[in-house]
This record gives sequence, C-alpha cells and structure tokens, in this order.
Amino acid sequence: MQSNPNYAYVRGQVLPLEKATLHISDLSIQRGYGVFDYFRVHNGKAVFLDKYLERFHASAKAMRMALPISDGELKAVIQELIQKNSMPLAGMKMILTGGYSSNGYDLAEPSLVIFQQPLILPGAEMLENGIKIITHEFVREVPQAKTINYTMGIRLIDEIRQRGASDVLYQRNGVVSEFPRCNLFIVKQDGAVVTPAENVLLGVTRKNVLDLAGKKYKAAEGTVTLEDIFQAKEVFLTSTTKRIVPIVQVDEQVIGNGKPGEVTLSLLQDLIRLEEQVGMQS
Amino acid sequence: MQSNPNYAYVRGQVLPLEKATLHISDLSIQRGYGVFDYFRVHNGKAVFLDKYLERFHASAKAMRMALPISDGELKAVIQELIQKNSMPLAGMKMILTGGYSSNGYDLAEPSLVIFQQPLILPGAEMLENGIKIITHEFVREVPQAKTINYTMGIRLIDEIRQRGASDVLYQRNGVVSEFPRCNLFIVKQDGAVVTPAENVLLGVTRKNVLDLAGKKYKAAEGTVTLEDIFQAKEVFLTSTTKRIVPIVQVDEQVIGNGKPGEVTLSLLQDLIRLEEQVGMQS
Repeated sequence: MQSNPNYAYVRGQVLPLEKATLHISDLSIQRGYGVFDYFRVHNGKAVFLDKYLERFHASAKAMRMALPISDGELKAVIQELIQKNSMPLAGMKMILTGGYSSNGYDLAEPSLVIFQQPLILPGAEMLENGIKIITHEFVREVPQAKTINYTMGIRLIDEIRQRGASDVLYQRNGVVSEFPRCNLFIVKQDGAVVTPAENVLLGVTRKNVLDLAGKKYKAAEGTVTLEDIFQAKEVFLTSTTKRIVPIVQVDEQVIGNGKPGEVTLSLLQDLIRLEEQVGMQS
Repeated sequence: MQSNPNYAYVRGQVLPLEKATLHISDLSIQRGYGVFDYFRVHNGKAVFLDKYLERFHASAKAMRMALPISDGELKAVIQELIQKNSMPLAGMKMILTGGYSSNGYDLAEPSLVIFQQPLILPGAEMLENGIKIITHEFVREVPQAKTINYTMGIRLIDEIRQRGASDVLYQRNGVVSEFPRCNLFIVKQDGAVVTPAENVLLGVTRKNVLDLAGKKYKAAEGTVTLEDIFQAKEVFLTSTTKRIVPIVQVDEQVIGNGKPGEVTLSLLQDLIRLEEQVGMQS
C-alpha cells in the first residue's frame, strides 16, 4: 500500500510518473486547449466509470476532438494504472489536449494523459458544521464541456480564503449556475429539491443526487436565483471528490437556521449507499 | 542558416527542442493556467523587446504570478537562443505557467518556457486585396492579460474557414473589442483613426500604430460599434506577426470601396520604417 501514485499514461505509454511529460508544442501549454474528466477509485474499482466516459466523449466532441483510443483500450489502461499504483482510495484524471501542434494554434492528433491522485473525502467536521461560500459574476465559456480552463477559479482562490469561505458560486444577473468544480442544489421552503438547469457542467454526482432526491421528494432542474438561495431551507453542493457538502452561509447571509439540513444529510446517506451497491455489483 | 529552431529554454535550462517538455502536473496542462508574450526577431535583433517584456510582466501580475528570473537574465536567455537558433526572421514566444502544482489546482513556482517559431509576414496579395473577417459575440475572461486561453478562438477556426474569412472579430452587444490574436482599427468618414479602448489586449503594434497615426491624423482610443465598422472608410487589423492587414469585408458587408485604403497602406509604410529605425539603433 502506498500513498502516492507512481505510474501515468501519456500518449500511448504507461510511464513512471516522474517521466510523464508533454512536449511544449502541446496545445494545452500553447493555448490552454483541452478537456478532462475525473472519477473515484475505491478499493480497486472505478466508481460510475461508464457515466464519466460518456461525459468525457461529450466534452471532447464539444471541443472538436475525439479520443485516440477505443473505450475498451481506455478501460484496460485504467485497470493497469489501478493495479500498478495500488491506492485504496484515489481519484483518476483523464486529460485530452489539442495535441502537438505544428504552428501552436491548429489542432493536431490529441494527447491523452491519465494519472491518479490521492483523494481525501470531506471530514466529519465539514459535514457537521457546513461551509461558507461566496458568489462571483461569471459564466464559463463552454459550460457544457469540462474544459481545462480554470483561469477564473484559480484567480479567485485568494478572495475565497480572504473572505473565510470554502468555495465560490458563479452567477450572472442574479441567476446562479455552478462552482468551478461542483454543482449546486437548494431545498426550497416547500421541500422541493432544485439544481440549476442552464450553463452548468452536467455532473455525474449531480445526476445521481437528482435521481435519489426524486425517489423521496419533489426534485427538478430549473432556474435558481440568488434570491432563491437566500430564501432556501437548505443549500448544498455536489462533486465527485466531495459527494455532498452542506452550505450554511452564502456571502454574508446565513441559510436557514445556519446548520446542515435534514434533506442534505439524508441524501448524503443515500449517495453513500448507492456507491456501495455499485461497488458490490462490479 | 536553418529554417527550424533547434533550442528552447524550459525552467532554467536551454535544451534541444525535442527535449523541451513540461511535467503533466504543470498548471497549463492541468488547468490551462498561464500567460505568454511574443515578439519578432529580425536579423538577430529582438524588435521592441522592452515593450513586450513590460506587457509580459503585466499579464503575469494580472494572473497572480511573477517571472522566476530577472529581466537581465531573461534577455541573456533570449540572446543565447537567437544565437544558437540562427534564424534570420522568426518569432519568439515566452510562456509563463502556474507551475508544477502538487494538487493540480493551487499555484506553484511558475514554469518559464521560451522558444522560437518560423515567421511568415503577410504576402503582397493579402496587402493588395485585403481580407474578409467575420464577427462573434464574445469577450475574453481577462482581457487585460495575454493568457494562454484560446478556447474560443480555436473552436471558431472551422467557422472562419467555412465562411471564407481570414479571422474573427469579437463583439458584445454590438460593441467590438479585438480578434483572438490581433487588434482592430477603423478610419472614419471624417478621417479619424480609432481603435477600441475597452476589453482589448494592449497590443504593442496597436500602440505603435496609434502613435504613428497621431502624427498625421486625428487618432484615439474609443468605443467602436459594428455600425461604426459598416460605415467606416477603412478597416484594418494590427499584430506582431502581421503588422497591418487591410480588411475589406466584415460578415456580408463590403467596407468602403472594397479595396485596401490609403490611410491603411500609408500607416503600414510608417510602421515598417519605424521597425527599421529601431533595428538600426539597437
């Protein structure tokens, strides 16, 4: 058992991580051009892999690229990395870039890179107390694609810290969309569970939580405004690495009674159960 | 004399180009995070180098980064590459990325990469006939910085070609700003030369042309609308690699008499003369 991954896949080869490089002509380095996806590996199993691969293909297509290997080959590479790296809990990231461009602008044969990262799930304290978030006026350029462009998110890291928050929610003209790396949900006063429909990345965890919520509550995609958030009973975020995290403050406004809500914590239990079921099936 | 560059500078080392790589943990590959700048090298001399370095520093600062070496060291590296590569006419590109990030998100010690590219100046035909451009609704995320993010520009390459155009001009709500890699100028019916003031990269060639125009005509930065363009006597673009190129059609509208204008061609002569003067001084 080791804490750090040791092998990565780069343009057709499995290599020791320290040798995993791309030439400077790659369009990710030259023009920030690429898409990626990211899934969890639990006890040697890739969780919800097919859903992540489906989205990876969709992101590539939205950016006029295609994967250079088949899904079968891709799954074999993923399996090889899981075995070689032998990490009980980890994330695995796949990046597809515009490739080694001869003029530094036109697309070439895409570069596919795959590697693992250590993963720490949110601790008990975060779930017990919830987090504060801030808001920022912004919509991503290609919201339907998981592009590698995090210029805005990374520029905002300092502001998030300075304001004592854990994340930043994008909004435009008072209509909210998503976080740099997470989706948003609210529970309205009437108990309905709603997640923004437009200008968001279609998160795999977002979809799972929406399905789980639909079994117990009124649940739908829809328009969510800042005012809806301030009036909400509960607010939470979802992501692959964080599952569900309760939000108890947005900018300077406390949400509900300032504590993680029942619906939020109940859905988290449902999600963990779903992951365990899928793990046993595969 | 050789047609292709053979050496590049990567994170402190001058290397043969084929060995010029960045590790996959670099924030350019992980998050498209970086800035760059680009200047011309004529007969072994870097043209207007100090202006480009000043802008490179400003872009880095806007993205919360700083160059890892001093300007003196940077100029020595540039000189070494010019001598080793021995290209009579070339561009030189400097890229500064967020560095080798331990978690793939937080900024690290920036990676500085410098290399040369062959350069072809616009041919006589382009200057004699002018070009067609199209327009697209968009404003760059951090217009004041020369970031590596060209997601939009590269996604539009196909549309530009399909519509028989040479470039795409960004506009929002009818107010135009810039091209992915060039600035815009118009000559109004009253002879005034105007370039957009807001949401543009402050091009070095843009500034040189604005100064040159001010010596002969009324010249200023200001608001330029699509309507201003359609009513203009002349329209042209400026860039480091293209100098000045006349624009004779915007979307389906012909500009002026459909031929490159006098002011445009006169300013191009002035610019070439200025470059020659600077070349002789240095």
